[in-house]
Amino acid sequence: DFIKEHEYSLIKGEVKCAYEKLLEKGEPSEKPTGWLTLPEDYDKDEFERILSASEKIKKNSDIFIVIGIGGSYLGARAAIEFVKGANYNLKKKDTPDIYFAGNTIDPDSLSDLLEMCEGKDISLNVISKSGSTTEPAVAFRVLRAYLEEKYGEEGARERIYVTTDKKDVVGKLKHFAIEKGYETFVVPDNIGGRFSVLSAVGLLPIAVSGCDIKKMMEGAKKASQDFKKPENDCFNYAAIRNILSRKGYEIELFASYKPSFLYMNEWLKQLFGESEGKDRKGIFPASVIYSTDLHSMGQYLQDGRRIIFETVIDVLNSKSEVKVPFDKSNIDNLNFLADKDLHYVNKQALLGTLDAHVSGGVPNIVLELDRMDEENFGYAVYFFELACAISGYISGVNPFDQPGVEVYKKNMFKLLGKPE
Amino acid sequence: DFIKEHEYSLIKGEVKCAYEKLLEKGEPSEKPTGWLTLPEDYDKDEFERILSASEKIKKNSDIFIVIGIGGSYLGARAAIEFVKGANYNLKKKDTPDIYFAGNTIDPDSLSDLLEMCEGKDISLNVISKSGSTTEPAVAFRVLRAYLEEKYGEEGARERIYVTTDKKDVVGKLKHFAIEKGYETFVVPDNIGGRFSVLSAVGLLPIAVSGCDIKKMMEGAKKASQDFKKPENDCFNYAAIRNILSRKGYEIELFASYKPSFLYMNEWLKQLFGESEGKDRKGIFPASVIYSTDLHSMGQYLQDGRRIIFETVIDVLNSKSEVKVPFDKSNIDNLNFLADKDLHYVNKQALLGTLDAHVSGGVPNIVLELDRMDEENFGYAVYFFELACAISGYISGVNPFDQPGVEVYKKNMFKLLGKPE
Repeated sequence: DFIKEHEYSLIKGEVKCAYEKLLEKGEPSEKPTGWLTLPEDYDKDEFERILSASEKIKKNSDIFIVIGIGGSYLGARAAIEFVKGANYNLKKKDTPDIYFAGNTIDPDSLSDLLEMCEGKDISLNVISKSGSTTEPAVAFRVLRAYLEEKYGEEGARERIYVTTDKKDVVGKLKHFAIEKGYETFVVPDNIGGRFSVLSAVGLLPIAVSGCDIKKMMEGAKKASQDFKKPENDCFNYAAIRNILSRKGYEIELFASYKPSFLYMNEWLKQLFGESEGKDRKGIFPASVIYSTDLHSMGQYLQDGRRIIFETVIDVLNSKSEVKVPFDKSNIDNLNFLADKDLHYVNKQALLGTLDAHVSGGVPNIVLELDRMDEENFGYAVYFFELACAISGYISGVNPFDQPGVEVYKKNMFKLLGKPE
Repeated sequence: DFIKEHEYSLIKGEVKCAYEKLLEKGEPSEKPTGWLTLPEDYDKDEFERILSASEKIKKNSDIFIVIGIGGSYLGARAAIEFVKGANYNLKKKDTPDIYFAGNTIDPDSLSDLLEMCEGKDISLNVISKSGSTTEPAVAFRVLRAYLEEKYGEEGARERIYVTTDKKDVVGKLKHFAIEKGYETFVVPDNIGGRFSVLSAVGLLPIAVSGCDIKKMMEGAKKASQDFKKPENDCFNYAAIRNILSRKGYEIELFASYKPSFLYMNEWLKQLFGESEGKDRKGIFPASVIYSTDLHSMGQYLQDGRRIIFETVIDVLNSKSEVKVPFDKSNIDNLNFLADKDLHYVNKQALLGTLDAHVSGGVPNIVLELDRMDEENFGYAVYFFELACAISGYISGVNPFDQPGVEVYKKNMFKLLGKPE
């Protein structure tokens, strides 16, 4: 009821134009669309080096620290929680704990991390194109000093991995890594940060967590093939979200019923927010985990201002089976659920909420994911990246730049007295 | 520049009226304002029992599981991360790990929790007014069965704490707790879920984490006294956010530079979203942790649609001191920061961002917190609760109900075939 047939058929032409524009060749610096063909043409030699490095790290480290911010952080974290669960670090396992640093300037966070490293074997991966972004640079200074103190310069060399620009330029991180003898991986020139999770940027940390990164690339490849068809779910999603946005639904709320989707939500917020939020335009991206947030944001969704549409991710299969036990006291009146699997109950919560919110005036888009494994992660990443790039062109912005991010940095450097 | 002097003086009268309306007496079921006087008139005997229970739990448990959803969950988690840091469970300490359950129906989350409990000593606290909310009820069934299997019914009795309605009614959780011989605490009748963190609902888990709950109550008490003055920061905050909302700033973005504020943000989203989001009205609450999210949502903030205002929490003191080390390579060009404390650098990020966003057309409200300790938590909770209740009355809604939350439940029960 929210979208009329003719609106849908009219916007299809725009989607087609946007997709064609995306495929037009351009300078990588202006039009970094390397992610489009990445699932097929990725560097196979580097991929093998990533696998070898991850095996070495798994063997010699209790803790693996990943230093990066924004696109050099969220993708890997999203993947690990997606596949291995939100409790990865808390659970017993035969792979290292993985901590993310350099995404905040807060001293308490870095101090906590140093405390947690005591008595453990550490490796670290710093991910930064130039090496000069403040947050990761500060964390790398502190943690490199810690590793050199602990292992000596020689020993630390075996434990520091640098993912950075390919080009060796004096004064940049790549040059420093060569001088120090660190193993390096490439932040591709033709892929922007928020599109880079399936490059070395994301793949090394993801492999360390024990995920099968080959399967991840296969999932992305399958998506890249599916979305070459003239009619496909990705184009449909781009079309529908833009129709809704033009009607005044200004907020897209990504909603999942799996707590392990939390960082995928964060990744989505960067992907869409940074790609579309410019020139005073853009759908505002927000996120929830249900049913948790039905008991916080649920009231607003049901009956607040009608400026929101929801994009619901329906995960069709869970990893675990937990059944509601029979209880003879039946104090909670839940015996009608006895022997039912929680996955089934969770699904009924999704269906009930869908109906409630739609009746309440909130358009809902439902995207189905088969399960939360490597292949589906790769597939979903490609799906959202393509939908995002197309949406950007439809709404008349350049989906690949982020000029606004520089303003705070410039102000901050001025306040800190950074020399020119 | 966003607000004119006369707008501010005109809305002051509305704030005064709203505050007076709040103080008018009413039936607790219609007008649950017990949180207003709670810092002074809380039940001192129960408070002592909470302290004793927390000491017992600290002694006999490696893991403390808190079962609750919405207002029975977010406050305690916010407090523990606020005071003890976001890495509480990962750090070495002499208090139990604290896990939150019953806030999702996802089987993978519950299965993870059961796995993490293996070989550990467990206590649990179920928090539910009636005992019949599906999410906590299901988790309680599963975990009670687990504890009875592990410790026997006698042993489990010593490890299960029930926070629920005061009244003993057959078929309700309170009655069941009495029959089973569990120690019980009270979900107050005159305080709604999202306002209940400083009652037994929040205080038992908070005390188990080693926080000083006496100081928390003192902080709240100080706030309750400060905001009796006719001119105060709380009234000002309520005034300003309502002026902005009426101008079309439809989203309030709570922004902090401390990762340990993350769950306080979640608590704020429930407090404001559930109180104001009704009758097709309400400011949409969202949140970010900077500088992390400057590299995801920063672009949108700087240059997207101008429908957002930010409420920035400036924490004036950090717990730890971490200085930027001098590095003779200076590869990252950061030697101008050598010997500077990260707290100082973080503050310049705040100031630089403030200036950038305000110049970009985003109104910013700055709230200062002295430090992230118990007293400031109690103070902040009271500040936001009062500002929220006043705001609700100003915008013409009942800030104390949440009729919309029932709709999804009703649908879900229908789908699940719950008997009448």
